Amino acid sequence: MDFTVDTATRTVVESFRDTGDPRLREVLESLTHHLHAFVRDVRPTPDEWAAAVDFLTAVGHRCDDTRQEFVLLSDVLGVSMLVETLDGVGEGTESTVLGPFHQSGSPRRDLGDSIDLLGTGRPCVVSGRVLATDGTPLPGAELDVWQCDEQGFYDVQQPGVQPPGNGRGLFRADGEGRFWFRTVVPSPYPIPTDGPVGALLRATGRHPYRPAHIHFIVSAGGHRPVTTHAFVAGSPYLDSDAVFAVKQDLIADFAPSDDERAAERFGVPVPFTHAALDLVLAPQAGPPAEHRG
Amino acid sequence: MDFTVDTATRTVVESFRDTGDPRLREVLESLTHHLHAFVRDVRPTPDEWAAAVDFLTAVGHRCDDTRQEFVLLSDVLGVSMLVETLDGVGEGTESTVLGPFHQSGSPRRDLGDSIDLLGTGRPCVVSGRVLATDGTPLPGAELDVWQCDEQGFYDVQQPGVQPPGNGRGLFRADGEGRFWFRTVVPSPYPIPTDGPVGALLRATGRHPYRPAHIHFIVSAGGHRPVTTHAFVAGSPYLDSDAVFAVKQDLIADFAPSDDERAAERFGVPVPFTHAALDLVLAPQAGPPAEHRG
Repeated sequence: MDFTVDTATRTVVESFRDTGDPRLREVLESLTHHLHAFVRDVRPTPDEWAAAVDFLTAVGHRCDDTRQEFVLLSDVLGVSMLVETLDGVGEGTESTVLGPFHQSGSPRRDLGDSIDLLGTGRPCVVSGRVLATDGTPLPGAELDVWQCDEQGFYDVQQPGVQPPGNGRGLFRADGEGRFWFRTVVPSPYPIPTDGPVGALLRATGRHPYRPAHIHFIVSAGGHRPVTTHAFVAGSPYLDSDAVFAVKQDLIADFAPSDDERAAERFGVPVPFTHAALDLVLAPQAGPPAEHRG
Repeated sequence: MDFTVDTATRTVVESFRDTGDPRLREVLESLTHHLHAFVRDVRPTPDEWAAAVDFLTAVGHRCDDTRQEFVLLSDVLGVSMLVETLDGVGEGTESTVLGPFHQSGSPRRDLGDSIDLLGTGRPCVVSGRVLATDGTPLPGAELDVWQCDEQGFYDVQQPGVQPPGNGRGLFRADGEGRFWFRTVVPSPYPIPTDGPVGALLRATGRHPYRPAHIHFIVSAGGHRPVTTHAFVAGSPYLDSDAVFAVKQDLIADFAPSDDERAAERFGVPVPFTHAALDLVLAPQAGPPAEHRG
């Protein structure tokens, strides 16, 4: 049988009939349906198809150990946020995008340590608790924290300028679920625009900026980990994040403080900036459906 | 306004409102709709999303000057064939996939030259005419020809083994639209399986083979160029091409011949293999719709 416009999708879907993993088969069948529907919708010319191949190739070539252009592409198309949002459970701290600058194996730090290894910025303390949805503290919860510096750059973007691990740290909450660390207030920044995703933003008249934020991945035994941000209240671009990641509940006050007792406890001079935020994890597996509210 | 499952697609589509090029805007809006529909359909976990990013990155990293893994990916998903088929005009020689082994700037050769630079294979003559749909010959039509050798490898896959340009040539039809060249009968071959697309085929229980074929891009002034194959009749895999490229009308007899006069004319010894095929180009722009048949 010839491959025709009528038979194309069915033929490709049937080619996956011997896939061993049922989930992989489900994903590939759905991909085939939606990808073919896109092609039928826009009817690309062969030159446009070749341009798409060239674009994806350039995105791939731009990826290395510290740059993930496919994550950027997923981000600016809202795919990352849609995946995170669909994966959410509707309770606890809301999730948002991982972003392209997460690094595995950040330095382990003690509570109260500074993740600002440059020491040139305005001191900021971030403190709070990791809690279960019923308000119970989660002792020993793990926090993976990363952020840009006051100029809007992550350490991996400035090798030789920033020491590795600047703006990053792994923290373990104390026996009452409390965490606190020192840092600088992050800056709004543009996502990298010197690659094909930057060219896409320019071609579409979109700005590349993200509002100021600190990244967190928070986990604790028996609970669902959450990948989220604390956005800096009042930051520019909160209403037009290039990667669509803002949720109102994730905006936190980074407030000036001249509380001398707090300053002494946190090991910072007054005045300092203080962000207080609780991070709430949903239970790992919900109760059986018939017991849900 | 928060990015939610309900607002996600509309928000991203609206982000493209300032796109200067209306076609780019149309394509990106359609892409957003179909890509988000795919994500809503399969609801990938964050780990599955990360696996997709890793897969696309590996595909990109596998692309270089002589290897185009994104073309392979497009091919095995039937996208390349769907693009070609939708782009077709329903008259003239049917189109099929470009494939990943086309090279720009193949060596210019004279009619009757051999593209088999190894000289170790069974001699084969390919001859025919380039015609308009009304049967008129197209003098001076251009043919870009490429094929694998008798072991199933293209020159670019075997640097140092095959001389560059083996199996390739640019030919110009004579004043009566005729072309003829010498070669070897191509072999069925697997698409490259040492990259992420090969891993995808293994995971889905699909074989990687393509039936034997010679590639052509044929063009002539005032006519639509066609990217096509001549498939070798009787080849294995004609009913299960890994890239879905077979159309019945593109299957050609590669027949044994002991015609001594023909052998002398083509400069080959008897017996030889002879494939005779006409390639038919549709007019560049069709007549106005009301005059169509």
